[in-house]
Amino acid sequence: MKKSTIKDVAREANVSIATVSRILNNTGKGYSDKTKQHVMQTIEQMGYFPNAIARSLINNESGTIGVLFPAVSGMVSAEMLHGIEAAAQVYGKSVFVCNTLSDPDKTKHYLQLLYEKQVEGVIFASGRLTRNFQKIVKQMNVPFVTLSGISDLKNIPEIKVDDLKATYDATNYLIKHGHTKLAMVSGPPHDLIAGTPRMEGFKQALTDANLPCKSSQISWSSAFYFEDGKHAFRSIMKSHPEVTAIVAASDEMAAGVISEANAQGIRVPEDVSVIGYDNTKLATMTVPSLTTVSQEFDVMGYRASELLCQCIMGEDTDSIIMEHKIIERESVKKTKARGVV
Amino acid sequence: MKKSTIKDVAREANVSIATVSRILNNTGKGYSDKTKQHVMQTIEQMGYFPNAIARSLINNESGTIGVLFPAVSGMVSAEMLHGIEAAAQVYGKSVFVCNTLSDPDKTKHYLQLLYEKQVEGVIFASGRLTRNFQKIVKQMNVPFVTLSGISDLKNIPEIKVDDLKATYDATNYLIKHGHTKLAMVSGPPHDLIAGTPRMEGFKQALTDANLPCKSSQISWSSAFYFEDGKHAFRSIMKSHPEVTAIVAASDEMAAGVISEANAQGIRVPEDVSVIGYDNTKLATMTVPSLTTVSQEFDVMGYRASELLCQCIMGEDTDSIIMEHKIIERESVKKTKARGVV
Repeated sequence: MKKSTIKDVAREANVSIATVSRILNNTGKGYSDKTKQHVMQTIEQMGYFPNAIARSLINNESGTIGVLFPAVSGMVSAEMLHGIEAAAQVYGKSVFVCNTLSDPDKTKHYLQLLYEKQVEGVIFASGRLTRNFQKIVKQMNVPFVTLSGISDLKNIPEIKVDDLKATYDATNYLIKHGHTKLAMVSGPPHDLIAGTPRMEGFKQALTDANLPCKSSQISWSSAFYFEDGKHAFRSIMKSHPEVTAIVAASDEMAAGVISEANAQGIRVPEDVSVIGYDNTKLATMTVPSLTTVSQEFDVMGYRASELLCQCIMGEDTDSIIMEHKIIERESVKKTKARGVV
Repeated sequence: MKKSTIKDVAREANVSIATVSRILNNTGKGYSDKTKQHVMQTIEQMGYFPNAIARSLINNESGTIGVLFPAVSGMVSAEMLHGIEAAAQVYGKSVFVCNTLSDPDKTKHYLQLLYEKQVEGVIFASGRLTRNFQKIVKQMNVPFVTLSGISDLKNIPEIKVDDLKATYDATNYLIKHGHTKLAMVSGPPHDLIAGTPRMEGFKQALTDANLPCKSSQISWSSAFYFEDGKHAFRSIMKSHPEVTAIVAASDEMAAGVISEANAQGIRVPEDVSVIGYDNTKLATMTVPSLTTVSQEFDVMGYRASELLCQCIMGEDTDSIIMEHKIIERESVKKTKARGVV
């Protein structure tokens, strides 16, 4: 079964190919309203002519938005996507997801593809929109928003949590509950999204509380995964065995800390407290469950998608800094609160 | 900045709209090779005319495949997608992912959209391709494969693990290590993919070992999540407090069993052993880490994607039953092996 072409439509509708072209291009000249209606009906009836292409040739509206995710934790992407889908549905848009694996070439390739598929807008999630992508972004000429990411390009609205402030608050939460010997298991310091700002937040909170703040109190890894947390905690325990509380830059890292502590016979939270970051489902699954910084990924996804759809409709929009909060569970010992030292 | 249309191309190339149409439709008549080359160059140079549309009108090849995921655990989807992307890259295809949330209307909508976007094939993951979708699947007229799913439609290759056999082996593993009082925390019995077959595998293994097998030994939930595992284990402990080993229908459920056991002061694996299903990253993160049935989701994704690309190229293909294996970690007590009863 062959797909129908403009030629088939012309034959079926008994008009010239040029007429079908004019109608699809909405030139407004060279055909009557009646002919247009007849041709569009023919296209619909034939079924095999792609409606999206006809529609997009007519009014440049594909009804789809594109989402680019890097190789982030599946849990984060899944929660964001849930919110993105929900808002897109409200605005009558469908969502195409592309997985960039944080590879710039793959990212560029997918942007090109989304351009060719005439998406009406793009959510760039959990990554950095560098000048490297300037040309294709300009060429696409559709709205972009970043979600938990950053943009080196101008006029791209951002939806994110203030990572520095959030980690400051997480560290402060531990200090408030009587901990004075703290360390951090962190992502890479060159990561401007989730590395640098979280390390800065940790350091500022210690400094503001007049607590020691040496670089050796931060053990960083090349990523934010479970194994990274295990290794980083092992190295912290060698250099700073006095530590009673750990700030982790992700829930997965915090789960790694709990697992490694368990392997070393260190009790959580009795001997060492741990606070996570993200509030993914994993935070409820660890034993003890994780006290963590909540980024409401589904809400953030929803807001990003909503913002994008508003941009598409030509509304004025602005970046949104989302609220964060500390979700209290079982992984932090409240020394002062319990009156124990 | 307006997007270019066929009209703009015609003007720029100094040919008629009909000529551009003929060339895009590859009619082979009404234009010279030189004119065709000139028009295609013009299209390329203008940049704003969607190449994908031109290309797809020319040869019906969009260079993309579609993947439909339901609302499965983010971890499973992420691992499958990794493999799907890798194989697609080998075959020069890009991947569009659609999230159906297991909603038939949304699924149909996304199939329609993938059709309109002229994907060359579809991977239908972790769901059931019912007769409900027969019309659109037929209309799309491109290869489909199911991945960890089932198809009520004929001639759709499947890539999956033999769930009944895998659960039989998991149950047998517990029996082999000295457990005689077993129970199962299961997904819904009406789920023909991961519900029914896993329950059957559990029952057959008990029966073959001449062990008691009452329906009350299976506590099922409406899904396969962490909370489902917690609730199901709580109910098992009420009706069968004698149980020493639990077969869980997913790693998330197994993590729920561990968490609930911990809350009740039941030690894993000293008092109760647990075996999971999936071997997601979560299985390494629990304390104790999970002994589980490995489905290699990334390999399965790779094979599904490879199979689909082969179908697209017109090669003969067949369903693939993937190997499963038991990954031994720390959550099962080996009673016989240790000589302890």
